[in-house]
Amino acid sequence: MGRIICAGLGPGDPDLMSRRAERAVRGASDIAYFRKKGRFGQARRIVEGMLASDVCEHAMEYPVTTEIPFDSPDYIRLLATFYDDWAARLTALAQSRDVVVLCEGDPFFYGSFMHLYVRLRERLEIEVIPGITGMTGCWTATGEPMTWGDDVMSVLMGSMSEDQLVTHMQGADALVVMKTGRNLPKIKRALARAGRLAQAWLVERGTMTDQRIARLIETEDHDCPYFAIVLVHGHGRRPERVEAAQ
Amino acid sequence: MGRIICAGLGPGDPDLMSRRAERAVRGASDIAYFRKKGRFGQARRIVEGMLASDVCEHAMEYPVTTEIPFDSPDYIRLLATFYDDWAARLTALAQSRDVVVLCEGDPFFYGSFMHLYVRLRERLEIEVIPGITGMTGCWTATGEPMTWGDDVMSVLMGSMSEDQLVTHMQGADALVVMKTGRNLPKIKRALARAGRLAQAWLVERGTMTDQRIARLIETEDHDCPYFAIVLVHGHGRRPERVEAAQ
Ligand SMILES: C[S@@+](CC[C@H](N)C(=O)[O-])C[C@H]1O[C@@H](n2cnc3c(N)ncnc32)[C@H](O)[C@@H]1O
Ligand SMILES: C[S@@+](CC[C@H](N)C(=O)[O-])C[C@H]1O[C@@H](n2cnc3c(N)ncnc32)[C@H](O)[C@@H]1O
Repeated sequence: MGRIICAGLGPGDPDLMSRRAERAVRGASDIAYFRKKGRFGQARRIVEGMLASDVCEHAMEYPVTTEIPFDSPDYIRLLATFYDDWAARLTALAQSRDVVVLCEGDPFFYGSFMHLYVRLRERLEIEVIPGITGMTGCWTATGEPMTWGDDVMSVLMGSMSEDQLVTHMQGADALVVMKTGRNLPKIKRALARAGRLAQAWLVERGTMTDQRIARLIETEDHDCPYFAIVLVHGHGRRPERVEAAQ
Repeated sequence: MGRIICAGLGPGDPDLMSRRAERAVRGASDIAYFRKKGRFGQARRIVEGMLASDVCEHAMEYPVTTEIPFDSPDYIRLLATFYDDWAARLTALAQSRDVVVLCEGDPFFYGSFMHLYVRLRERLEIEVIPGITGMTGCWTATGEPMTWGDDVMSVLMGSMSEDQLVTHMQGADALVVMKTGRNLPKIKRALARAGRLAQAWLVERGTMTDQRIARLIETEDHDCPYFAIVLVHGHGRRPERVEAAQ
């Protein structure tokens, strides 16, 4: 009987993978990863060059969604069937060997793997290897510390309503907004209403080779990529800088 | 001219260090790390067994604080002088070699290193290597996914006032409370007032060899250790589980 090992791969730079994740990836006979149809897959890209030559790859391609809207009951049902299917296939595979599931960032932080996890955990032994989250890679890339002292940090999704975004943006010191993409204009409006736009950064593909970092206010209203995060750093209470004694 | 390299070491388990941090640690001629007087230091403990035999160690010991309260202007001044001092010493060292500063978790997430960083960045080249945050190690240890769908996650400090804690606990879906220690009874009261106590977990020394995980409501009102985090998992919107199509 094999196990499922879900390896959190970190924000994108393969060097930011943990030692444990690296060992799991290099030793894998079977890997599985999510991707959009027609794409190589970001998790798969991170491990390029690290896999055994005879590794067996299982690409879990999300059902195509041009016809039905993302948040419709129909799409939710389609997605649930997709996860049920892959849970069954991974269970079958794991009868005879370990399967390493690759995940960007940290698997338990808004990760797709969690949908497999809740289906598989009663049937199989599962090990989850944590990873550096995308947001951690992004704030490091800005070169500014993220949170100080008693700062409250809130993580928000760009898919929330503008009003909800504003409320949460007013309530916290440091802000992270994920799932930006098409939501970027709405996120900008919400930040402006909350009085936080001037301090916001946009990090696209943080830690990847084509990383881009800009003050949000200086960016055009372009469609930003899927891997993009908006950040507002906290300033907290911190010891004032005083001249060294005497 | 040398550089300062700050290596985020992750939550505690040395295997959760990144490949880049591992290389920095193994190759270091000089390391520096914070610790309380009379302690070995948690960051130092993580790298035990990985250092060059002739490494030069610089323990940065926090000023002792039995006399003056932590949040008094006097202590804040003492601390600022301490950081000024070490910024000067590291600058002198880095004239001739690289110095690797060790940090638990991620350096830019409520890390002491940030106080050196703002003092040093105008004088020296600094590389910051992100790490897996303590909270990520802790939620992985609970075996429950942390955030789903549109969940809002807020990170709070146990040092905040009870009323502030309650407000933020009511506003978010997933909760992380750090700096627990002596604040644990207050955190419990705030969670109870916010109606979140029954769902809360306490993770002590997450991913370390003596890790302890419990439902918060089942713990005694003991003094919990410095490395302890309270977590409430989000439940978010997620695809319902449906039977696989025939
Ligand atoms: C479904 S969530 C997965 C999060 C992931 N499990 C993690 O720990 O970061 C996907 C979102 O993460 C954010 N993201 C993850 N990695 C990123 C990176 N390297 N740069 C920018 N955004 C990133 C984007 O906002 C994206 O919409
Ligand atoms: C000054 S903050 C430093 C946070 C660190 N830079 C990080 O990224 O996690 C110290 C607090 O982090 C939390 N913490 C860090 N690592 C932890 C672990 N392994 N287990 C439990 N709590 C941890 C505790 O709440 C502690 O009070």
